[in-house]
Amino acid sequence: MIAIGERINGMFTDVKQAIAEKDKAVIQDLAKRQTECGASYLDVNVGTAAADQEATMAWLVETIQETCKTPLCLDSQKLNVIATGLKVADTSMGILLNSTPLNKKNDEEILDKFLEMAKSAGPEGKIIALTMDKNGVPQDVDTRVAIAAEIVEKAMGAGFEMHRLFVDPIVLPVKVPDAQQQPNNIIAAIGQIVFLSDPPPHIVVGLSNLSQGAGERSLINRTFLVMAASHGLDAAIVDVLDDALVDTLATGEMLLNKQLYSDSYLKAYRNA
Amino acid sequence: MIAIGERINGMFTDVKQAIAEKDKAVIQDLAKRQTECGASYLDVNVGTAAADQEATMAWLVETIQETCKTPLCLDSQKLNVIATGLKVADTSMGILLNSTPLNKKNDEEILDKFLEMAKSAGPEGKIIALTMDKNGVPQDVDTRVAIAAEIVEKAMGAGFEMHRLFVDPIVLPVKVPDAQQQPNNIIAAIGQIVFLSDPPPHIVVGLSNLSQGAGERSLINRTFLVMAASHGLDAAIVDVLDDALVDTLATGEMLLNKQLYSDSYLKAYRNA
Repeated sequence: MIAIGERINGMFTDVKQAIAEKDKAVIQDLAKRQTECGASYLDVNVGTAAADQEATMAWLVETIQETCKTPLCLDSQKLNVIATGLKVADTSMGILLNSTPLNKKNDEEILDKFLEMAKSAGPEGKIIALTMDKNGVPQDVDTRVAIAAEIVEKAMGAGFEMHRLFVDPIVLPVKVPDAQQQPNNIIAAIGQIVFLSDPPPHIVVGLSNLSQGAGERSLINRTFLVMAASHGLDAAIVDVLDDALVDTLATGEMLLNKQLYSDSYLKAYRNA
Repeated sequence: MIAIGERINGMFTDVKQAIAEKDKAVIQDLAKRQTECGASYLDVNVGTAAADQEATMAWLVETIQETCKTPLCLDSQKLNVIATGLKVADTSMGILLNSTPLNKKNDEEILDKFLEMAKSAGPEGKIIALTMDKNGVPQDVDTRVAIAAEIVEKAMGAGFEMHRLFVDPIVLPVKVPDAQQQPNNIIAAIGQIVFLSDPPPHIVVGLSNLSQGAGERSLINRTFLVMAASHGLDAAIVDVLDDALVDTLATGEMLLNKQLYSDSYLKAYRNA
């Protein structure tokens, strides 16, 4: 499982405050701790409060890179904010552009732009593409898979290798009325997306969104994570500082034969 | 998920001692506590130490029935021990005969005998049939599914409804060398067995066997349980007294849309 650390996000109070006060120590501590806990990428999201989102993205990227070399996942709904982060990011170890829909309400072919931007970042330039199009987020399995197929087709047409493409079937909060069928739908969609191509694209979710507003957040997140992993999910934006989640993930991967069993498999997972 | 409480088994030291001393209180306490924790059936296994296995099975059944009406799951590798339990069991609320292979090394058609015995127990007489035949326990997915198909076919041929048949793909300890592919194989087999008929048979595992000899037993058990549930597992012989396991199971069922989300869904699951 490719774990993308979620914590450097302006939606969290500590990060929001650190951004406002230009307090590098808070950001760098989160970068280091998430890396130690096994994050393969660090998500970087300026949140919605920052006055100048482009300048904030650049500051966050530079601040993180002063302290660790973990590849970054530049996270914004705005292309220009991601582009600004990309200008100052060290892409030699990899970079993940997060995220683009297939196309926009106004029919803008935004996916093409992300593919070009990722290519320009070198051989390790990668993107997260949402199963979402000009009609919004689909609620059913078939439309999710159909959009994923269009994304895969477009990426292939652009000569973009599947190991550089992360398809995100979009996890919604289970607490939202009428959304309770969604986790099941997403698991079913994952089980089909994995067969769209050979090799398949990566499949990623923004896990914590699932438990927004719920009481048992960690339990809900980790339970869904291993169920989805057993259907082909191989990447997730998660709280790697959540020990119970990492233990469950390590156990799931061991049971799925992606890590050897040993009596100290939990330790081995963290050291890997 | 149909939870079958595993604790009344002579392999556990407390039960073994209670059998030796004819101490009803220990057995009855386990029967009551497992029922309170949501067991739909109580497994009854005399273990290997009892001098007279038939008499011990009869004593356990009568002892449990003095204190609660939870349906029993008569568990033995010996047909005569199950038959003796069945003679004294109250089958009006249901009875589960656990377990039979498809056939035996000597070609004995043992499944047929179990089907007849279950039928004789009335409309709620049910059986657990192992995906195992005269050649032993298969290690690969295809043979497990092929044997399951033979079991389903034989049951249908005997006019035995699918809701009375529990197919068990046989969980092996993950700690055994060379067995680490097995949990993955079992999950894959479950995903295929569920499509063998419509309606499908129940699919059951003896969960705790998975973590025999391992350190993180509850974590391994509960992680496998929800992954398997997401592929169609709908019954398990488990330790219902393990709170973390029941919490994880409740969360998995909620995420699979088999239980409504509410802020108190963990409590609601136990009360259901």
